[in-house]
Amino acid sequence: MLVLGVDPGLALTGWALVESDRGRLSLTEAGYWRTPAGAEQGARLLQLWDRMGELLTRRSPAAVAMERLFFSRNTSTAMAVSQARGVLVCAVAKAGVPLAEYTPAEVKQAVTGSGAADKRQIARMVRMILGAAVPMGPDDLTDACAVGICHQHAASLRRAVAGAPA
Amino acid sequence: MLVLGVDPGLALTGWALVESDRGRLSLTEAGYWRTPAGAEQGARLLQLWDRMGELLTRRSPAAVAMERLFFSRNTSTAMAVSQARGVLVCAVAKAGVPLAEYTPAEVKQAVTGSGAADKRQIARMVRMILGAAVPMGPDDLTDACAVGICHQHAASLRRAVAGAPA
Repeated sequence: MLVLGVDPGLALTGWALVESDRGRLSLTEAGYWRTPAGAEQGARLLQLWDRMGELLTRRSPAAVAMERLFFSRNTSTAMAVSQARGVLVCAVAKAGVPLAEYTPAEVKQAVTGSGAADKRQIARMVRMILGAAVPMGPDDLTDACAVGICHQHAASLRRAVAGAPA
Repeated sequence: MLVLGVDPGLALTGWALVESDRGRLSLTEAGYWRTPAGAEQGARLLQLWDRMGELLTRRSPAAVAMERLFFSRNTSTAMAVSQARGVLVCAVAKAGVPLAEYTPAEVKQAVTGSGAADKRQIARMVRMILGAAVPMGPDDLTDACAVGICHQHAASLRRAVAGAPA
């Protein structure tokens, strides 16, 4: 099962396609989208819309996983991120792909075994789980891998509970 | 010149088409879109995307006007509104229609002459400016009218400065 993990942002959106094969996880492809800071917000959001649409068409993941929105002290950043996230969630709905959402603590727990892990611990565990295939890049890329891994674990657990093979 | 004023929200988005004819403003059409509270956020955002796209195609306004995002004490509401707003801004960009943004104080100032006007004063002035054509409805509808009027005033001022007829 192929899962697209996404870490949304207006300036930078990280994404990672995480494959599972009989319980073994691997990274199929990952990257990030930057939008130009000087451009109009509508043009930037439209770039995210187009890129998400293209990626979903090209790779047809079984599900998309994103972190839930949480309170941020910097409200203007939170609102810019939320606008970008809304566009990406809408593009996923448009493509008819199911969206799964996890809290930051659930993602940390799934990847490191601790809901209080820091960025470095998450990055190290993501590399251990997915292997050297994880490209170097901004945190957003590792975070996209992490939420993809989290959904694979949750889906595998659901299959185990349902009695199907993981 | 036909201007579409929009007051975005996930549960309720108000919109108003404000026409100007030699400095006289009138309401061409107005309404609001509700999305079902029980539905998935992706489905709700996609409804807003589709409805905005249809309205822009059907009416071809010269511009869309929206209030800028501002800090809200209720951050989870602010983030839900921002997601909806991002989708609507993206739909406007997709349709190639220019977007104009105004602060809440600019809208109040343009409609009532005071940047500190309350909801009731705005609603009363909107009715005085646009006439009885303004349908009764939630505040979101009056607010959409107000931002549309604000853009008409700003555009008329720009034309006057440029020496063109208002």
